[in-house]
Amino acid sequence: MNYTAVTSEHIEQFQKMLSADRILTDEENLLRCASDETEDFVFRPHVVLQPVSTEEISKIMKFCYEQNMAVTPRGAGTGLSGGALPVSGGIVLDMKRMNKIIHIDAENFQVTTEPGIITEELMQAVRKEGLFYPVDPSSKGSCFIGGNVAENSGGARAVKYGVVKDYVLNLEIVLPNGEILWTGANTLKNSTGYNLTQLIVGSEGTLAIVTKIVLKLLPPPTRNLLIFVPFHSTEEACRAVNKVFLAGYTPSALEFMEKDALVIAQNYLGVYPIQITGDLAAALLIEVDGNDEEQLMREMEGIVNVMEQFNPGEILFADNDTSKEALWKVRRVMGEAAKHSSTYKEEDTVVPRGRLPELMKKVKDLGSEYGFESICYGHAGDGNLHINILKRAMPDDAWKNILPEAIRKLFIYTRELGGTISGEHGIGYVQKSYMDIVFSETGISLQKQIKQLFDPKKILNPGKMFPDH
Amino acid sequence: MNYTAVTSEHIEQFQKMLSADRILTDEENLLRCASDETEDFVFRPHVVLQPVSTEEISKIMKFCYEQNMAVTPRGAGTGLSGGALPVSGGIVLDMKRMNKIIHIDAENFQVTTEPGIITEELMQAVRKEGLFYPVDPSSKGSCFIGGNVAENSGGARAVKYGVVKDYVLNLEIVLPNGEILWTGANTLKNSTGYNLTQLIVGSEGTLAIVTKIVLKLLPPPTRNLLIFVPFHSTEEACRAVNKVFLAGYTPSALEFMEKDALVIAQNYLGVYPIQITGDLAAALLIEVDGNDEEQLMREMEGIVNVMEQFNPGEILFADNDTSKEALWKVRRVMGEAAKHSSTYKEEDTVVPRGRLPELMKKVKDLGSEYGFESICYGHAGDGNLHINILKRAMPDDAWKNILPEAIRKLFIYTRELGGTISGEHGIGYVQKSYMDIVFSETGISLQKQIKQLFDPKKILNPGKMFPDH
Repeated sequence: MNYTAVTSEHIEQFQKMLSADRILTDEENLLRCASDETEDFVFRPHVVLQPVSTEEISKIMKFCYEQNMAVTPRGAGTGLSGGALPVSGGIVLDMKRMNKIIHIDAENFQVTTEPGIITEELMQAVRKEGLFYPVDPSSKGSCFIGGNVAENSGGARAVKYGVVKDYVLNLEIVLPNGEILWTGANTLKNSTGYNLTQLIVGSEGTLAIVTKIVLKLLPPPTRNLLIFVPFHSTEEACRAVNKVFLAGYTPSALEFMEKDALVIAQNYLGVYPIQITGDLAAALLIEVDGNDEEQLMREMEGIVNVMEQFNPGEILFADNDTSKEALWKVRRVMGEAAKHSSTYKEEDTVVPRGRLPELMKKVKDLGSEYGFESICYGHAGDGNLHINILKRAMPDDAWKNILPEAIRKLFIYTRELGGTISGEHGIGYVQKSYMDIVFSETGISLQKQIKQLFDPKKILNPGKMFPDH
Repeated sequence: MNYTAVTSEHIEQFQKMLSADRILTDEENLLRCASDETEDFVFRPHVVLQPVSTEEISKIMKFCYEQNMAVTPRGAGTGLSGGALPVSGGIVLDMKRMNKIIHIDAENFQVTTEPGIITEELMQAVRKEGLFYPVDPSSKGSCFIGGNVAENSGGARAVKYGVVKDYVLNLEIVLPNGEILWTGANTLKNSTGYNLTQLIVGSEGTLAIVTKIVLKLLPPPTRNLLIFVPFHSTEEACRAVNKVFLAGYTPSALEFMEKDALVIAQNYLGVYPIQITGDLAAALLIEVDGNDEEQLMREMEGIVNVMEQFNPGEILFADNDTSKEALWKVRRVMGEAAKHSSTYKEEDTVVPRGRLPELMKKVKDLGSEYGFESICYGHAGDGNLHINILKRAMPDDAWKNILPEAIRKLFIYTRELGGTISGEHGIGYVQKSYMDIVFSETGISLQKQIKQLFDPKKILNPGKMFPDH
């Protein structure tokens, strides 16, 4: 696509829409908005705008639509699929100043918020009112709730509580042409018209800009228990996952981690809560939560019994908040640590839970075949495996030209297992050429037509989701 | 819209697509498919087709698309918004022969099924494999799972377990032009492309025909407790609802019933498990479920403590399956009983739970103002109130010409409370002229464009959802 380049005349027009201190063309801001957490991409925008209201966004979009200018909305830039990369340059719509919680409705277990608030801050704010927003991506300390909505994020507790889409009741959005609308209602049930809300959730900022979010909240669980279970074999760890559910338990988190993931995470942190013994191959981190201590103890005992059928090492009980947080920190930092250790690519495969052992095996087999190293971890309870492919000694040419073939094979296998190519990171820029693996031509065509309908000039978040976009 | 009328030549063509015994033009079948459970509408189709496979449906649709013939898909005909009414005549696609469960995947807590199976039969079949599908519309003994998907149905247990949309992982659909596709993957999480699955759920058979459904299942709860709580005032009953949640409890059902609803239901059944004393004005039916008897007893005691703040009558504990089922039967039969007692209209309003007392008051105020009687009951835990407006002594003219004005006022008020006009029944034929209350022009226009994209000739389920369709 050819977009109109941003000129000083356009900047003058923007000055009529928002104050000059929120129209940024300095090197620092252009560079900040040129990248996200995805690999090492850099796409410099021409200007960064920081709106503070829906109305400002509406004006900006109306203008950009008329002028045919590319606009890439940006949350905190923690995305792992390149969704926030301004690959066509143009304008970055930096949402960080739209960070107000508009209303916590404790009576109805709802919160209405702007998109630019850090997810963990939102969680803490509702917690103060006795409410619970459970979706906790690993980046919760820095990501924005708006980005979570864009990518339909998950996180460790999705296995019990679901993902972002399960909490979004209603959205205020701005269309590419500047029109403003609400997609639904602030209700727990809604059979009124097509589900525009769910069409926007996970649409990666390609259909509209989310300006207000109404989330369902829950009564908070007051207690949790956490164990760390080391295994002598990766396969046994994977096989143990499904047996927890088959035994009737629903943990609030069930995370899988390969030994190498534990090693790089602890080295990166410089803190070593987990003793990595010679025969440790992989581990599970399992949490149960609720309100009744005795009940939780019984559940955890039941889960430990399941584990013991798989010949685990010594199970570590985290018996206070400090030791729990230390274990969680190791888990949460893995992506960052992997990225720090090598040029890398992160795949976000997801399969029916019981197929995890097969998926793990395939990853390693392909690694042997194609000569890449991988570090795997993820939300095993959901069947969601993060595969970090490390470049390390792989030649540049193979990394660039041969590896995509291996990834394609991996994704085809993932689909054969009933799975798909992204569980929670989105397609964005880096996975778009694999969409044909999981969607038929008709399926892709329908999606492109939906894009066309919302954004006929394709100005919003160009270069994402579809191979030829 | 003008559609091509079905002729004997078309019937001959259909005979090439499906066997003659599944091409029905007899009076009984035309009449059966002329109505659903919505009011007393009768729209006779020209022919009823009973496909047995996706491929047959694809051929039928391709032909009808070429010929510009109206096609109305039909489940069990239990709908309450007229979604299955063939208002333009033409073809009814009767899904009753597509009633096979294709695969129960106990390992991964999933079932793949055809749409024409009765919901309760599906529930029982998965229960035999130790699995639980929790969404139980009141009509579960006769409705089809496909119709539930079309309307995004709820039911009594939605308050804890959610509605149909929360269980649909993947759908096989046939587009109006006959193309077949899968919308997603068989995974618990999915951030791959636009959420076509959720766009189809609740689209009331206007975008595509659902031919296979993959549902998420849960481990079954093994125990439940049920109480019936009579109140001296409707307002107190409504106010008590929200306090249950504010006290930290999540019942598996929390149903509200006005006295008149109890009276007509028991009279209709001819069975009287509930003693209706002089000062009973309304009642709540409250269930908790789980696996731990003691835990459930504690929860129920806590809920009873909440109830006692609202001056209830004598609380009835249902202490065995027979008495539980007797209470549930009274609740489930209310719609049928209301319909049996008078010409009626059923509204399916839903508001944030805490606003129920205001909604109830408004219903009765409007009743006084416009001279209609109403019987209210519903899934109060979700804020979902079924308002049965009874014609009884209301003059025909007022029923036809004045009542819609009262309904419009009611719906506007519902929206003002943060609610919407259908929680679980859908818009269908009877609510389509009220869509402008809850959607802006832009919102309606987007939805119509989505319809246009899937069904450019508007042959699929014509006359539904939009006022001018």
